[in-house]
Amino acid sequence: MGKLYLLPNVLGDGTIEGVIPPGVRERIKTIKVFATENAKNTRRYLKQLDREIVIDELTFLDLNEHSDQRQVEAILPYLDEGDVGVISEAGCPGIADPGAELVELAHRHGVEVVPLVGPSSILLALIASGCTGQRFAFNGYLPVNKGERARALRAYERQSAAEDRTQVFIETPYRNVQLFEEMLAVLSPATRLTIARDITTGDEWIRTRTVKEWRGEHPDIHKHPAIFVFHAGGRG
Amino acid sequence: MGKLYLLPNVLGDGTIEGVIPPGVRERIKTIKVFATENAKNTRRYLKQLDREIVIDELTFLDLNEHSDQRQVEAILPYLDEGDVGVISEAGCPGIADPGAELVELAHRHGVEVVPLVGPSSILLALIASGCTGQRFAFNGYLPVNKGERARALRAYERQSAAEDRTQVFIETPYRNVQLFEEMLAVLSPATRLTIARDITTGDEWIRTRTVKEWRGEHPDIHKHPAIFVFHAGGRG
Repeated sequence: MGKLYLLPNVLGDGTIEGVIPPGVRERIKTIKVFATENAKNTRRYLKQLDREIVIDELTFLDLNEHSDQRQVEAILPYLDEGDVGVISEAGCPGIADPGAELVELAHRHGVEVVPLVGPSSILLALIASGCTGQRFAFNGYLPVNKGERARALRAYERQSAAEDRTQVFIETPYRNVQLFEEMLAVLSPATRLTIARDITTGDEWIRTRTVKEWRGEHPDIHKHPAIFVFHAGGRG
Repeated sequence: MGKLYLLPNVLGDGTIEGVIPPGVRERIKTIKVFATENAKNTRRYLKQLDREIVIDELTFLDLNEHSDQRQVEAILPYLDEGDVGVISEAGCPGIADPGAELVELAHRHGVEVVPLVGPSSILLALIASGCTGQRFAFNGYLPVNKGERARALRAYERQSAAEDRTQVFIETPYRNVQLFEEMLAVLSPATRLTIARDITTGDEWIRTRTVKEWRGEHPDIHKHPAIFVFHAGGRG
């Protein structure tokens, strides 16, 4: 029986050299079946990993947010034949994409799951924030509704102060500026807020300031992938 | 002014080839000043990264859990002269080690902070668990007191169910078996629990089962670095 490999992808226009270990690159070259959100992009990425790779010998299976249980189960028989690689559009699979369901199924069927090292914008933003990494939460997307979002932000801020916990969020890039402005409006002046934009690319930009210090600033984050990290009060 | 680089280390006896991207390796070779928990181990690691490296030309500054504010501040002047690299004993700095304070100070002084890609046992365990990565929390160590620990586990389990959130923990390796047994005693039978041992090493072993399925099993985790991941009920 094959193994299920969780394969890293680059972030944005980050280079393979900068984010993919050589051992991971070699492992990817041995895999013939890929479960992927977008086969076209995966083919291009594999060609970048190894120009000699023969794409026509590879199999690409759809695995995306619309995949239902049956489509995920349809991947299992390929594991009887050999290894399968799960690859997402950016970074590590299974964080904010549909890989987790396949992984869970693999465990239930006794398939060995092997996570390979690569870039995670969430983890890199966290460590670069200077906020505590002893306790943190990744909360995904905040509610879109303005009132609900403000309430959620305040609740996360209270939890941060009470538990000495760092809070991490993502947003759809075209809504980044709006989220930033709402954070400045809602959070306490002493809360430390990190904006981490375009991590591992040539445009990487990471800054931590208090909410008060951020006021009047307009970081260039519109339509850029960004991670938001905050910690309420004190050092954290 | 120099930059503050957050440098990855291997996990256990994991290989550099398997977990360190070539670009990161090249960057590390250009750095002359290191803030480290253990200079001796860092010297050995640097020698493994590059046999040609001249250790005597490098400066090693102490940065550990006992470092007070003044010791952390003493690192700042080195950034006036050039780059400084922060390196922890294993994996990425700033997660469960003292790097965060230095990073925070760097931000306050306008120093650019650059996180470099490497292995994180927490992140790798999470993605390999098959539990949702859309919302998760790393909660560090649970209370040592048995009653408090049971209460904390139940509260984290309730939160997991209510928020569809994956919970991640570490433990001192010699207490792993005890934590595992307490999890089996306290958590609901349907809760899915992942044990991720010796990630990225030759002894890597990652399994997800329900608490009910784990009963009667004795995973070999005594004195091995391990990450515990759980998600209450349902798919998650």
